[in-house]
Amino acid sequence: MNCDVCPFLNNFGRTITQTKFWKVDINENQEYLGRSFVSLKRHCGSLSELTKDEWLDFSELVRKLESCFKRTFDAKLINWSCLMNNAFKEKTANPHIHWHVRPRYERDVKFAGLTFKDPEFGSHYARGQDRIFLQPEDVLIKIIKELKENL
Amino acid sequence: MNCDVCPFLNNFGRTITQTKFWKVDINENQEYLGRSFVSLKRHCGSLSELTKDEWLDFSELVRKLESCFKRTFDAKLINWSCLMNNAFKEKTANPHIHWHVRPRYERDVKFAGLTFKDPEFGSHYARGQDRIFLQPEDVLIKIIKELKENL
Repeated sequence: MNCDVCPFLNNFGRTITQTKFWKVDINENQEYLGRSFVSLKRHCGSLSELTKDEWLDFSELVRKLESCFKRTFDAKLINWSCLMNNAFKEKTANPHIHWHVRPRYERDVKFAGLTFKDPEFGSHYARGQDRIFLQPEDVLIKIIKELKENL
Repeated sequence: MNCDVCPFLNNFGRTITQTKFWKVDINENQEYLGRSFVSLKRHCGSLSELTKDEWLDFSELVRKLESCFKRTFDAKLINWSCLMNNAFKEKTANPHIHWHVRPRYERDVKFAGLTFKDPEFGSHYARGQDRIFLQPEDVLIKIIKELKENL
């Protein structure tokens, strides 16, 4: 019944940006370059409970991030999803609103000495163990820095 | 370069509800009971271009639909995603904002003489040919009717 998201709210080591109500952190899994998650800065379990101000703040953040991913790495579109399934593995679910953000790429992107590919471009994002590309901390830091400079 | 979504805007045969800016239609694939899609009622290709009024109208619709799925079929949570990947299969992409809505279920639901299961409850929604459960029109109509009565 612990919250999986709250611990991230006070950890800024992988933070790209934040707004009044939301915080954006890089996902250590970079199978899609720039993959991030956007967490609500208060513990709240369903989109139905978001306030108007939180929605409007989110809408501005969407604009800022989409523009940033396009400008920084030439993303063609951004996949957004709010699922929160994992919280329901527990007998007493304790979800916390967060969005998964996956930039999608028509062409390979070379960055930090690596080549990032999106072989499923034009289709649903891939999942599963075979698709998990954990990057070392120094690569994550370079990605964050590059995104921050283009915000 | 045709739009896949615009044709739905003038077809109300599978419509659950609509608001000033959004229209909700049942998905013929009911692998998750009540699976629907929410389309913007104007042709617009990216969340970055939504107006404040469209976001706020969407936020109220989220509340209404989540409550409806929980009340009607005892959904435990709702998965929301805005992807638009298919539009990028074309050389000149022509996306149109729509949300995929997948209610998720802890227990089997019996409805219209069928049993709807969610064996992946607590995990990401399943995809792929083996998971496509197209329902005959009369079952879709019954699902729409039941949801409409609980809106």
